[in-house]
Amino acid sequence: MRILDSQAIEDIAIGAAVLGTGGGGDPYVGKLMALQAVEEFGPIQLLDADEVPDDALVVPSAMMGAPTVLVEKIPNGQEVLGAFDSLKNYMGREVFATMPIEAGGINSMIPLALAARLGIPVIDADGMGRAFPELQMVTFHLNKVSATPMMLCDEKGNSLMLRTVDNVWTERLARTATVQMGGSVMLAIYPMSGTQLKTAGIRGIITLTEKIGRAIREAKGQKQDPITNVLSLTGGYELFRGKVIDVSRKTIGGFARGESQIEGLDAYKGQTLTLNFQNEHLMARTEKEVLATTPDLIAVLDMETAHPITTESLRYGARAVVIGMPCNPQWRTENGIANVGPRYFGYDLDYIPIEERIKSFRRGGQK
Amino acid sequence: MRILDSQAIEDIAIGAAVLGTGGGGDPYVGKLMALQAVEEFGPIQLLDADEVPDDALVVPSAMMGAPTVLVEKIPNGQEVLGAFDSLKNYMGREVFATMPIEAGGINSMIPLALAARLGIPVIDADGMGRAFPELQMVTFHLNKVSATPMMLCDEKGNSLMLRTVDNVWTERLARTATVQMGGSVMLAIYPMSGTQLKTAGIRGIITLTEKIGRAIREAKGQKQDPITNVLSLTGGYELFRGKVIDVSRKTIGGFARGESQIEGLDAYKGQTLTLNFQNEHLMARTEKEVLATTPDLIAVLDMETAHPITTESLRYGARAVVIGMPCNPQWRTENGIANVGPRYFGYDLDYIPIEERIKSFRRGGQK
Repeated sequence: MRILDSQAIEDIAIGAAVLGTGGGGDPYVGKLMALQAVEEFGPIQLLDADEVPDDALVVPSAMMGAPTVLVEKIPNGQEVLGAFDSLKNYMGREVFATMPIEAGGINSMIPLALAARLGIPVIDADGMGRAFPELQMVTFHLNKVSATPMMLCDEKGNSLMLRTVDNVWTERLARTATVQMGGSVMLAIYPMSGTQLKTAGIRGIITLTEKIGRAIREAKGQKQDPITNVLSLTGGYELFRGKVIDVSRKTIGGFARGESQIEGLDAYKGQTLTLNFQNEHLMARTEKEVLATTPDLIAVLDMETAHPITTESLRYGARAVVIGMPCNPQWRTENGIANVGPRYFGYDLDYIPIEERIKSFRRGGQK
Repeated sequence: MRILDSQAIEDIAIGAAVLGTGGGGDPYVGKLMALQAVEEFGPIQLLDADEVPDDALVVPSAMMGAPTVLVEKIPNGQEVLGAFDSLKNYMGREVFATMPIEAGGINSMIPLALAARLGIPVIDADGMGRAFPELQMVTFHLNKVSATPMMLCDEKGNSLMLRTVDNVWTERLARTATVQMGGSVMLAIYPMSGTQLKTAGIRGIITLTEKIGRAIREAKGQKQDPITNVLSLTGGYELFRGKVIDVSRKTIGGFARGESQIEGLDAYKGQTLTLNFQNEHLMARTEKEVLATTPDLIAVLDMETAHPITTESLRYGARAVVIGMPCNPQWRTENGIANVGPRYFGYDLDYIPIEERIKSFRRGGQK
């Protein structure tokens, strides 16, 4: 167990937005939510998964919806309290702790804000080790944890409890409700036991995001290259450097979908990188070849500061470095790839781990 | 209190489909559900609203969705049990009785089947005195009863509990869930006290539908005109007689929407009647004038038997009598007309009570 202070929250927000791979919400908004909660209600306990009793009830909390909407409709941190309380009452048990379902500027912060308000710990684990757009895209699902009973609330006071026959139905029904409720809602979902958490969760993710955030922050004073620091913490690769020349984006069916184009600079001059996204970046490719695909992580970082740029804040003219990072091994199983691989998202290509793609790319003479 | 036997159920199904004004589901399917439940679990107690204690909890039950879907996806009567049980558990109280929310071939029968299965009474009241397509179109809503907490279940085993800030949100969220769940679902909705029921309910409606059904059945043996019997029980008017020459129908957004055309026979020769519907008939008009609009009731009956014809079973060539009946006075208030009058459904005309429209129509020399 350790205590998260304000500096830790700031670092986690930034590091989580890196692993959020363009989705998971804006780290600035997320950080404000968590900092305000800590200021009002006191510090947050972070527990290792091993510190959770096997029979304890753990309930992850999150925002669902298109990040493009969230920028206009900033949550105040109260919305998720209602969802959480209703689920607790329905289950008739005390909730031992909360945790994130994904890494992201907002979705790593909501459980922190909630934990501060309720005086319960946060577990140092999530269900993705990155961000993904759909509710069944979690390692909990791969390990047969049910997403329901779950609660979904909007900021107006509407709430919805779901019990579904499987997690794909959860996604389907929750998504249409989210669209009706204005495009973003709060969730209490995947209630699970300590035993389930220990098997199904991706451990140490909050600590990792904190390290990434700290490395980015400290690089400046230490005159290090912050991007090199991020790559070394995540085992990642630089994929491209350039200037954003086009972004097209639509909010469809509760998702922000689109693509952006980056014109190469330095060693990449003369090439153009295309990034496809659905909330999160799913594929990075040049005219010649695919550099990385889901479930591996693709993040866009500011060329100077290494601050992560989310898909909804990507703008023409931004100078960016695109990096790729290997995903958690659970996503590289057959079941993992069936759930979040390129074909699930409609791209007609096989998943090839980024380590292999990058070898072929470098053999081609780039960098 | 009285006991409903099999004959009563058959009569109620037919009578309810008359007041169902083309919607509310097929009386044959509905009747089978209720008869099977009575055969298996015993007879049903029908209580007058005055027999309900003021503090008793009453929970109406119903099917929601497009009747066109229900024909293909016949409920077995079990679906609503789950919804009912979950709501009871959520509210932490025993349910004293159930009741219909509307009159209709299916929706008058679901509460009967449920009451037989659970061994609880049915109240002789509903919330429309007819059928309407949306959840907030009930006298409960006019009297400020909340539709939520409500439960919604499909036949696959998915369920959803809603708490909403108002009843229009209930309709909106339940409708999109219904569409996702396959177009028709079961509801436990508008939980209310005995006191609320006595103010907000339309009383005696099951008894009235039973009388209508019996009058239709008995007319044959007694060589009476069954349609005259229906008109005298409901204070209604014959609007038209003819042959169905066109029906266009689409299932859009969880509703069956469309219009049908009837070519006049006998006194109506040379005229064509157009019926507009959204699950229920909403307007009847000839080339020259409007004969009746919502909230007054418009029903299509078989010319020979007076059996009601629902909008989804209306076919080319059917010989039909179209009748109009005055709606319950609650619908004729300013609030009632704002909720279910012609303008709500997009028709650019004022509501004029059928008694006045029919005078002008008859002055024009028809019949």
